[in-house]
Amino acid sequence: MDSWVDGRPGDALSLKDRGLAYGDGLFETIAVKGGQPLLLDRHLQRLAEGCSRLAMAADHGLIRSELLAYAAVLGEGVLKLILTRGDSLRGYAADPAAAPRRILQGNPPVVYPPAHGQQGVRLFPCATRLSIQPALAGLKHLNRLEQVIARAEWQGTDCAEGLMLDLEGRVIEGVFSNLFLVRDGVLVTADLRRCGVAGVMRAELLFQAKSLGIPTEITDISLEHLQQADEVFVCNSVYGIWPVSACAALSWPVGPLTRKLQGIACALLDA
Amino acid sequence: MDSWVDGRPGDALSLKDRGLAYGDGLFETIAVKGGQPLLLDRHLQRLAEGCSRLAMAADHGLIRSELLAYAAVLGEGVLKLILTRGDSLRGYAADPAAAPRRILQGNPPVVYPPAHGQQGVRLFPCATRLSIQPALAGLKHLNRLEQVIARAEWQGTDCAEGLMLDLEGRVIEGVFSNLFLVRDGVLVTADLRRCGVAGVMRAELLFQAKSLGIPTEITDISLEHLQQADEVFVCNSVYGIWPVSACAALSWPVGPLTRKLQGIACALLDA
Repeated sequence: MDSWVDGRPGDALSLKDRGLAYGDGLFETIAVKGGQPLLLDRHLQRLAEGCSRLAMAADHGLIRSELLAYAAVLGEGVLKLILTRGDSLRGYAADPAAAPRRILQGNPPVVYPPAHGQQGVRLFPCATRLSIQPALAGLKHLNRLEQVIARAEWQGTDCAEGLMLDLEGRVIEGVFSNLFLVRDGVLVTADLRRCGVAGVMRAELLFQAKSLGIPTEITDISLEHLQQADEVFVCNSVYGIWPVSACAALSWPVGPLTRKLQGIACALLDA
Repeated sequence: MDSWVDGRPGDALSLKDRGLAYGDGLFETIAVKGGQPLLLDRHLQRLAEGCSRLAMAADHGLIRSELLAYAAVLGEGVLKLILTRGDSLRGYAADPAAAPRRILQGNPPVVYPPAHGQQGVRLFPCATRLSIQPALAGLKHLNRLEQVIARAEWQGTDCAEGLMLDLEGRVIEGVFSNLFLVRDGVLVTADLRRCGVAGVMRAELLFQAKSLGIPTEITDISLEHLQQADEVFVCNSVYGIWPVSACAALSWPVGPLTRKLQGIACALLDA
């Protein structure tokens, strides 16, 4: 469907936009079913935190109402919201009077091979490392060259996702997913205070696990931790959960906690 | 003057452009005098290296001829070239068939206070650190959120530039400049293999210094090194050289090597 720019149909962006010039903005990729944006509150919560940390004064009520209106027209698919700092003066200093710009884009539902969810996926071991940057860690901002060059490391369909470590060797996430492991019944995911994207599905799964009395841990994960895991899976707010069956020489069975959480994620995304 | 998109006048960008989505591209900011883009070969050389490292297959002959044509119309001012990876499919994987997109923007000459060049400038000591990322170090790419948040750390005119260290405490550069120091007659600038932008004026000054028999060193610079410097200056390809008179509690005199190189930079930018 047609994109919207600042609430009106449009297919073009001002060349002065700071999203283009500097990647100065944030985005959210939201699954839409039955005209509803799914996990909307979590998406809006992350966006608001990003705006706060980047000092972008957005109208969050307006963003919510536009997301609801756009999703109602889209019906089924994937909605992408890009929020930039608006037009720029020349140079890095932002115009304090510039209003953030809202861009909504609609795509048809993404169809992944059913085997990804059933038998699990193989991860490509990316050589590209995530840099350490606490000032931007966790945010879904528009500076995504690390993901672009990591994703270009493999072609073909053997690997559905890539595994990214940080520059100091910690296991962080996938290129477009967060990563969890299960060890002795504990659900573990990477601490994202140095780098990584704090995914909406990651937050929801941590919440759901706590509600079910499943112990959770947010910590630094080494390759040894990963190797010794009983189960490994990746997740995001569009496909839900894919069990991870292998990465390079490592392999894992698809385990019961992965299946349990996969059912929950499926239910959330089939709403 | 009007912007050009892919060689034609235009003021709008496709919303699918990967420059917007991911900051997936490069840029050059080029001074124009008498209808000529200055230091053009160095700008094109850095752009070509960036394209090579990011695996963007651009037509560099076409880019050169467009820059020359655009500068001839602009006459005097600052020309900004943005080269993006073109339109995207959904997701980080690039469409191998997509052609890079060329965006040319013209601005009037930037007028800085003459005192910046005469008495020198004070640097704001930025708390924002540059992350270590060898895969992107040196490139003038579109992922510039670190510069955006660093530039937002100070307002007013007391400080004309900011000083940026890397996450490990090395002195790297300004927010929109490279930094040099002079110590015992040696011209020293930061090694940019971990982070930083390899500026065109930096490269030209290193070349000019070698031609004049001035010893040069590209190395890691600590705050102690900076403190002990005999002279400090910042540079870029638009303003040339500004002596640095102070940063926080540190101060330096404006020295003879700074003045000598400043004369050379002025001549290059007055061509």
